[in-house]
Amino acid sequence: MERVVVVQPKRSVVDLPVYQPGMSIADVKRVYGLDQVIKLASNENPYGSSSKVKQAMLAEAEQLNLYPDGAAIDLTSAVAKHYQVEPNQIIFGAGSDDVILMICRAYLVSGDETIMADQTFPQYKHNVEIEGAISIEVPMKDGTHDLEAMLQAVTEKTKIVWICNPNNPTGTIVSHQEIVSFMERIPSQVLVVLDEAYCEYVTDQEYPDVFKLLPAYNNLITLRTFSKIYGLASLRIGYGIGAPEVIHTINQVREPFNTTRMSQAAAIAAIEDQDFVQTCKVKNAEGIVYLQQAFERLHIQSFPAHGNFIMFDVKMPAKEMFELLLHEGYITRAGHKLYPNHLRVTVGTKEENEGLIAAIERILEKTKVTS
Amino acid sequence: MERVVVVQPKRSVVDLPVYQPGMSIADVKRVYGLDQVIKLASNENPYGSSSKVKQAMLAEAEQLNLYPDGAAIDLTSAVAKHYQVEPNQIIFGAGSDDVILMICRAYLVSGDETIMADQTFPQYKHNVEIEGAISIEVPMKDGTHDLEAMLQAVTEKTKIVWICNPNNPTGTIVSHQEIVSFMERIPSQVLVVLDEAYCEYVTDQEYPDVFKLLPAYNNLITLRTFSKIYGLASLRIGYGIGAPEVIHTINQVREPFNTTRMSQAAAIAAIEDQDFVQTCKVKNAEGIVYLQQAFERLHIQSFPAHGNFIMFDVKMPAKEMFELLLHEGYITRAGHKLYPNHLRVTVGTKEENEGLIAAIERILEKTKVTS
Repeated sequence: MERVVVVQPKRSVVDLPVYQPGMSIADVKRVYGLDQVIKLASNENPYGSSSKVKQAMLAEAEQLNLYPDGAAIDLTSAVAKHYQVEPNQIIFGAGSDDVILMICRAYLVSGDETIMADQTFPQYKHNVEIEGAISIEVPMKDGTHDLEAMLQAVTEKTKIVWICNPNNPTGTIVSHQEIVSFMERIPSQVLVVLDEAYCEYVTDQEYPDVFKLLPAYNNLITLRTFSKIYGLASLRIGYGIGAPEVIHTINQVREPFNTTRMSQAAAIAAIEDQDFVQTCKVKNAEGIVYLQQAFERLHIQSFPAHGNFIMFDVKMPAKEMFELLLHEGYITRAGHKLYPNHLRVTVGTKEENEGLIAAIERILEKTKVTS
Repeated sequence: MERVVVVQPKRSVVDLPVYQPGMSIADVKRVYGLDQVIKLASNENPYGSSSKVKQAMLAEAEQLNLYPDGAAIDLTSAVAKHYQVEPNQIIFGAGSDDVILMICRAYLVSGDETIMADQTFPQYKHNVEIEGAISIEVPMKDGTHDLEAMLQAVTEKTKIVWICNPNNPTGTIVSHQEIVSFMERIPSQVLVVLDEAYCEYVTDQEYPDVFKLLPAYNNLITLRTFSKIYGLASLRIGYGIGAPEVIHTINQVREPFNTTRMSQAAAIAAIEDQDFVQTCKVKNAEGIVYLQQAFERLHIQSFPAHGNFIMFDVKMPAKEMFELLLHEGYITRAGHKLYPNHLRVTVGTKEENEGLIAAIERILEKTKVTS
């Protein structure tokens, strides 16, 4: 029998997985017969977003039929003003995922190498592989980027180094001085992507001040997002700040209208409300202290948490704990290849954190009895 | 002096232009000192969008902090129901631009060839070039796709054929029978992208019914959008419908959260309000008749218009007429490489169309006097 020839995707795409989203709150309620379900799986802001955002969006709802400003001029001005950088240093994407995509699309060809930690944000590797390029995954030390080893991994083929700081999922950071030392030694033709999606949560004084670094290094770009502390994950808006030459190149592959009118308006209102950001930062820091103390009391080892999430060793396959917590009404995140016994949870409100710890205690009690 | 080596984009990106958006209504008001400015440049819906959309969006404004459903399950169901197709035949993008990007990213490698008309939607060529692939631009006949010539252009390297129907910017269509004849002869390993962004406006009985074709051809995908007749351009939501294998491949390169919560909710409300669509279709058809009759009266040649726009010969460099119309308060579209004397205008409301024709008449009168 003749076999019909079908359209063939490019080789690097054939075996790529399709992203499988986690269960929604509605799913878990239905499947587990629960009235109340708390989602601590996606590092969303439990305090919502600035009250000024909704107003800004309503004004935009009157012109749904009109294309957004592709160049996002007003939002660019607002962000440039906030950080005291030039407008031509900023690029917006539909979430920082979209900036990652654009960076890969602009710089990588088949056979190029990029360097990343061996347990970090999966969109780097995914996008690198779509381009047919290679991900060199450098082992971390105690859940922290090993910048020395990453430097050693640089070859003539290296185009990009990805540093997620705080690192998702471990929550650890590298310091300002470590980044300076790294930038001083990395070849200037290698683009260093410092993904700072969670930077607004960090309280550690050693955390890098990227705006002191950008004037010195043309090959450095920071990625930021409105999805985390600004609470606008639903709207898909993130950005990169770097040297004008790099931003220009990314702009060359940007879709003309890659962010929505709603997102732009919401983001302007959000960045102008730094009181909201400060409040969320303080509450999150209190939540981390509470969770870390609880984990110590329960003899649970956790990584130093610098974002709005914490990763801890549940001393059983994390997928089992994940399942047990679902029954208790908590959606968390398991499935980290290097840390099969570690669960990642978002820092919630005081009540949510207390509820989570109580649920974990109940589970540990039960598993102690039955084992 | 030592020259610092900087980060190099991939070769195919170096010379790509950055998209230059047209002037906004606010820009034109300011620059030309006008109180009222009508934008007929971007084929937006002059009647806005369904009144049901705003309500649906308001409900979503309560959960801005939560990521959208990456798989867009509810919207997929609504679209599948509307067209009587299976959910696994549908993929969503941030506008159909995003589906074009994903198709190129999934299928094209450097050196691959794609075939398109020589004056068509520029995002095909742009995305093809980013992948380092080649655009074979086949001359149209009287502003219409020459499918026979496009078939002749197929080689062993051909991966994709782009057919924009109605064609942007000329507005012409190819018929159902022509597409059938084309699909029968195109090799089955070539993906045929039938971009039907304006399909809902078409009244011609010969227009293809792609849902009769999809069961027969696994290598066919239709692109559609909520940006045009549905009036949701601000929200960036479009889609593709094709064979499950093709949709799966595109899904492999889709960003996990590529459409917003607002867009998904708005699109569901929009597709369920077909009365709004029907009203817009009828008014648009009346507008085309009015404009065509006016052009005949003024001895202006125009292409047969099947979308919500019309392209006509202004018998002077179109950029001059564009500039003269700006002074009159009308933003239109010039700059079509093959048709330097043709202007493209969106079909507006009755009042907008009458105003445009009056403005053109004033301009023609003045230029007659001065020349």
